[in-house]
Amino acid sequence: MTQQTFNVAVVGATGAVGEQMLKTLDRLDFPVNELKLLSSSRSAGKVKTFRGTDITIEEAKPESFEGVQLALFSAGGSVSKALAHEAVKRGAIVVDNTSAFRMDENVPLVVPEVNEHALDKHNGIIANPNCSTIQMVAALEPVRRAYGMNKLVVSTYQAVSGAGADAVDEMYEQSRQILDDQEIDPKVLPVSGDKKHYQIAFNAVPQIDVFTDNGFTFEEMKMINETKKIMEEPSMHVAATCVRLPVETGHSESVYIETEQEGLTVDKLKDLMREAPGITLQDDPSSQLYPLAADAKGKDDIFVGRIRQDLDNPKGFHLWIVADNLLKGAALNSVQIAFSLIQKGLLK
Amino acid sequence: MTQQTFNVAVVGATGAVGEQMLKTLDRLDFPVNELKLLSSSRSAGKVKTFRGTDITIEEAKPESFEGVQLALFSAGGSVSKALAHEAVKRGAIVVDNTSAFRMDENVPLVVPEVNEHALDKHNGIIANPNCSTIQMVAALEPVRRAYGMNKLVVSTYQAVSGAGADAVDEMYEQSRQILDDQEIDPKVLPVSGDKKHYQIAFNAVPQIDVFTDNGFTFEEMKMINETKKIMEEPSMHVAATCVRLPVETGHSESVYIETEQEGLTVDKLKDLMREAPGITLQDDPSSQLYPLAADAKGKDDIFVGRIRQDLDNPKGFHLWIVADNLLKGAALNSVQIAFSLIQKGLLK
Repeated sequence: MTQQTFNVAVVGATGAVGEQMLKTLDRLDFPVNELKLLSSSRSAGKVKTFRGTDITIEEAKPESFEGVQLALFSAGGSVSKALAHEAVKRGAIVVDNTSAFRMDENVPLVVPEVNEHALDKHNGIIANPNCSTIQMVAALEPVRRAYGMNKLVVSTYQAVSGAGADAVDEMYEQSRQILDDQEIDPKVLPVSGDKKHYQIAFNAVPQIDVFTDNGFTFEEMKMINETKKIMEEPSMHVAATCVRLPVETGHSESVYIETEQEGLTVDKLKDLMREAPGITLQDDPSSQLYPLAADAKGKDDIFVGRIRQDLDNPKGFHLWIVADNLLKGAALNSVQIAFSLIQKGLLK
Repeated sequence: MTQQTFNVAVVGATGAVGEQMLKTLDRLDFPVNELKLLSSSRSAGKVKTFRGTDITIEEAKPESFEGVQLALFSAGGSVSKALAHEAVKRGAIVVDNTSAFRMDENVPLVVPEVNEHALDKHNGIIANPNCSTIQMVAALEPVRRAYGMNKLVVSTYQAVSGAGADAVDEMYEQSRQILDDQEIDPKVLPVSGDKKHYQIAFNAVPQIDVFTDNGFTFEEMKMINETKKIMEEPSMHVAATCVRLPVETGHSESVYIETEQEGLTVDKLKDLMREAPGITLQDDPSSQLYPLAADAKGKDDIFVGRIRQDLDNPKGFHLWIVADNLLKGAALNSVQIAFSLIQKGLLK
C-alpha cells in the first residue's frame, strides 16, 4: 500500500514558527509530496532546504495556492485574513497559527488531544490556538473530563521567543549591556507595535500583546476565550494574567483550578497526567523534580509538576505547566492537526 | 523638647538586609543614641560607618545586648532562636526579620499599615513577616477592610536577592556564561542548602525555600500562614505558588482575590490604593503604565497596577503588586515597626 502524500504550503516560512514548522514536518515524517514556501515579498527569493531539496521562497498570492492541499499559515493575522479564504477557494485546507479566525464560530479551534472531534465540522479553515492556551488545555483536559472544572486562574511566565526573533535578540543584547553597565535602549518588548518599550533583561513585564478596553491584554483575552471554546465550557470561570520574562523559549504557567466534582487527589491527578498523551509528569518534591522552562526547550511534550491540593478547598488544585512555545505551542500542534485531518480522511 | 534616642543593635549587619537596615535607619532619621553592630564570629572585627562614625562589628553573644533598647535581627533563624530571648531578658525589644518566631502565637507579626495594634500585646519579640507576604498584605488590607476577603490566590515572581548576595552573584555570573556559550555550574539557587541546584539565568524556577510534606514549599506556606495571621482571617482561603526569576531585586506578584461583599469596582479599588499609606498606584493601560520590578528597586513604596475586575465573577479582582524585597520586604518594614513602637510609647 502506497502512502498518500500531500502538496503542502507553509506561509511565513522564514519566521520563528515557520522555521519550526519545516523541522517538525520533516522529523515527524509528514507525507509531503510537493512543498511550497510562501512569504511576504521581502523574503521572496530566499532559499530553504527541506529533505535535501532546495526550495525558493515565493511571494504569497492567491494563485500560490493552486494545487495546494494543506496550507500552514504563520505569517501574522493580516496575511491570514487576506489569503486563507483564497487558499480554501482553491481547494486547500488551512491550518492557521494566528489569532485571525480563532474565535470565529465557523472555525474549529483545535488541540488534537482535547477536541480532535471539532475538526469534523471544519469549513476549510482550522485555527491553531495561542501558545499559552495549548499547553494549559492539553494538561487540564483529562482533569476536566474526569472531574469537571468550575474555575481556572492562571498566571503565566512567558518566553520572549513568543514575540519573535527580534525579541530574542533584544533580550540577549540587553542582558549583555546590563552586565557591562551600559545604557539600554528597549525597542521591541513588550510589544513591538505598541508605544512604549521596557527593559526585559532581569525584569518581569506584565504585558503581552496590547491592552483591550477591559484592562486585560489581548493575550489574556485569548487565553480566557480560547480555553472556553476548546474545552466547550462557555460558562466556566477562566481568568489569566500574562507576564513576559527574560527566558528565551519555554512558557511556564502557574495554574489554580477547582473541580466540579469531589474526589480528586494529588495521586489521581498525577495518574491522569501519566496517562495523558503528550504530557510528561515531572513531580517529585523529595528530589526537587519539577518542570523548568530551560529544560523544556526543544521538547515536544508538555511538562507538568508542582501538583498540590489546595489547603483550604479540597476541590482546588495547583499545577505548574511548562512547554516549548514554538513547538507544542505552535508548529507541533499545527502539524498534529494536519495528521488528525489525514487520519479522519478529511485531507484529500 | 529633646527627642528621646535609643541604643540600637543590628544583628546580621553584614548581610544584604543588614546593609539596607543601616541605610534605612540613617535616611529615615531613626533616633539612634548608640549603635551596636553584631554578627557571627566570621564577620566580627570588620568596620562599618554609620552617620560618620566607624563602628567595629562585634560577635553576637548574650552579653552583647546589655544596655540595648532595640535589637533588629536579620542573621538567620538559628541566630534569632539562640539570641532573641537573651536580648529580651536584658531589656531590649527585638524586631526579628527571620521566620523563627513568626507563627508563635505570643509573637506579633506586624506590617504597620495593616496591624500596628498587634504591637500592644508584644512580649519582647516582634516578628517581621516574609518579604513576599508584606507587600501583598499591605496592598490588600484596604480592600479587605472595606469589602471583606474570601479568597486570595497568588503566584509570585521573586528576585534572587531574597536568597542572599551569593544568589545575586550566581545569577549575573551565570547570565554571562550563557551569553558567552560557556558551561554553567549552579551551586546556590534555588536553595543553597538543598540537594540540587538549577540554572536561574534565562529560566523560571518554581522553588523558593525547601519543600514541606504537603508539596508546598516553606516560602508558600509562609505566605499562606502569615497572611492569615496578619490579616486576622484564619478561615480565609489563601493559596500561593512561589517562583524565582532572574531579577536582582524587586518581587512581583500576580494576585487574584474575591471580596466577601459586593460593590467593589476597579475605580473604587484604585481609589483605595491611592489613599493607602505606602502604596503607589501605577495603573494606566492606555499609557502602558504598570509596576515593574526593575523600577521598584531602591524604592520604599509598594507599587500596584494591572487592576482588573474578573470577567466571570463580579467579586473577583486581579492585581499586580511589586516592591523592593530588601526594603519594604525586609529592612524598611523592620524600621517602620520600630517607629511604631516609639509612637505607641512601647520602646523605652
